[in-house]
Amino acid sequence: MDRMKITIDTLGGDNGSEPMVQGVSEALKLHDDFDIILVGNEQELKPLVKKYECDENRVSIINSTEIITCHDAPVDAIRKKKDSSLVVALNTVKDGSSQCLISAGNSGAILAGGQFIVGRAKGVRRTPLAPLIPTKKTDALLIDCGANVDAKPDVLVQFAKMGSIYMESIVGVKNPRVGIINIGTEDEKGNALVKETIPLLRECKDINFVGSIEARDIPEGKADVLVCEAFTGNCLLKFFEGVGSMFLAEIKGTLMSNFKTKIGALLIKSKLTERFKRFKADDKGGAPLLGLKGLVVKIHGNSKNTEVRTAIEQCRNFIINDVNGKIVAAFEGANDKE
Amino acid sequence: MDRMKITIDTLGGDNGSEPMVQGVSEALKLHDDFDIILVGNEQELKPLVKKYECDENRVSIINSTEIITCHDAPVDAIRKKKDSSLVVALNTVKDGSSQCLISAGNSGAILAGGQFIVGRAKGVRRTPLAPLIPTKKTDALLIDCGANVDAKPDVLVQFAKMGSIYMESIVGVKNPRVGIINIGTEDEKGNALVKETIPLLRECKDINFVGSIEARDIPEGKADVLVCEAFTGNCLLKFFEGVGSMFLAEIKGTLMSNFKTKIGALLIKSKLTERFKRFKADDKGGAPLLGLKGLVVKIHGNSKNTEVRTAIEQCRNFIINDVNGKIVAAFEGANDKE
Repeated sequence: MDRMKITIDTLGGDNGSEPMVQGVSEALKLHDDFDIILVGNEQELKPLVKKYECDENRVSIINSTEIITCHDAPVDAIRKKKDSSLVVALNTVKDGSSQCLISAGNSGAILAGGQFIVGRAKGVRRTPLAPLIPTKKTDALLIDCGANVDAKPDVLVQFAKMGSIYMESIVGVKNPRVGIINIGTEDEKGNALVKETIPLLRECKDINFVGSIEARDIPEGKADVLVCEAFTGNCLLKFFEGVGSMFLAEIKGTLMSNFKTKIGALLIKSKLTERFKRFKADDKGGAPLLGLKGLVVKIHGNSKNTEVRTAIEQCRNFIINDVNGKIVAAFEGANDKE
Repeated sequence: MDRMKITIDTLGGDNGSEPMVQGVSEALKLHDDFDIILVGNEQELKPLVKKYECDENRVSIINSTEIITCHDAPVDAIRKKKDSSLVVALNTVKDGSSQCLISAGNSGAILAGGQFIVGRAKGVRRTPLAPLIPTKKTDALLIDCGANVDAKPDVLVQFAKMGSIYMESIVGVKNPRVGIINIGTEDEKGNALVKETIPLLRECKDINFVGSIEARDIPEGKADVLVCEAFTGNCLLKFFEGVGSMFLAEIKGTLMSNFKTKIGALLIKSKLTERFKRFKADDKGGAPLLGLKGLVVKIHGNSKNTEVRTAIEQCRNFIINDVNGKIVAAFEGANDKE
């Protein structure tokens, strides 16, 4: 295997290049078997590489002059902003000079660019975006939360397989339980898509299908891979964020109510921070866009160094475990034209 | 107008007849312009009516010998258990001896029974189940969370109108903001259903359509009526319950961690209870099944007297405000065959 290379789009995030370089520096110190390509503003990146004492033999910089912002229309931006950090970074994966890309940029542009520039792996019909979401026990992979709305049953079956491979190879869950998100647990429940998909999933010998999971039971951790069509997944993912933020605001509001509750807050603060830590994205890495010829990882727009470092480790595991090879092998013979 | 009558299915809930009768007693004391029909076990109900000092001139009892449990298959149960409290109660609405029914029973059976026994109002194509969900500001109506999966655009338009009438007439929101749940806020975002529905909603002169609402923004209270197809709505509603219960468990766990946090808990407990009260269902009434020839209200299986009382008030408002008349008027000329 060639030496591992991981590309970082340093301009997409809300916090600029600094946390990206800081995360890179931390990751470089943890493992010595990969190199980094930083794409962005060279003038800005050079001093940051020095400041965070990155090993300069392992870091190369590609200058890019444009930025795709969150206001840009995704497909248009990918087509027209040829010298944007995202497009330049995607091209390093396309031309094989890197195997993975991490970006904190415009989600739609990352999804579109992944498909149009990097391209689908052999046999893959759609490329799902699959973040981990916290449950009461461990984390579960919600696949698909991306842009493949109105997917067909055979595509959901591919998501189930990709998700299962990812959870086993990257997250380390043995024989991951695959569930399909549904409005009831009996097989006759569901919309047309889910009802058609369930028997196909039951037939799959290579996954551990555990049936329908009601959304109420997602936080119970009843499955490791949660298969759904992207409209549902995207709604659930964003609702999780919205409801979580509403509850946290209520807790904060409660603690700041009066003198008595402020004293109470001092007594519970450290435990509260500790217990709610796992609801934060930092140590989960990013959401992988699976089924491409390389790996593209979307991290939050406001990512700090920790999330960048974890995402780099996630990419390293992805390459070492040859997840793409496993996905291609799973879809051998599948029709990749559409 | 005939004197208002409201029927209570006293056998469907987890807590038996007692909280139902207690709630009835409380409601009877608040207003003197309606009567109650209790359906259930007569031997059990008679002493309860005495115990809670219900005005016996305003309460009649219909005995029924069967119960539809949560394990019964909905459609089958409605067909076969002719003397179940739910079927007998639905028949009081069908034959006009009552205008509304409240049940804490099997959701599927309530939905099926509403459609098959009570029947759709003129012009209504599908009958949505529409619970209120709490947001940071007020409550929003999530329509549809029922069983109408794979609904078509014109059906979603009807949901928008029914939801708007309900929020204005029953909840008292002037010119309610109607949003459609979507995966982005631009009109070109969404699945085929949402993209086809948006222009139809824009054309409606009788609703205040505010566009797409991302699930992340639901708790921000950006719309009063949240239109969605039932698969999405049902998933979101149940996910809300699941995520809410996970966060509350985390808070409880935090407060019980050690001696220090337990002291903290004592200091914040009353404020915490106060602030989280509005996330409880008690004072919201139940979820109305709209568009029937009468009103059917689904309350939680574990409802206590407060939820029963509030649901009775909700039914009373529904009749007084002639919500069904308004819905029928809104769909004048709509095709009610399908």
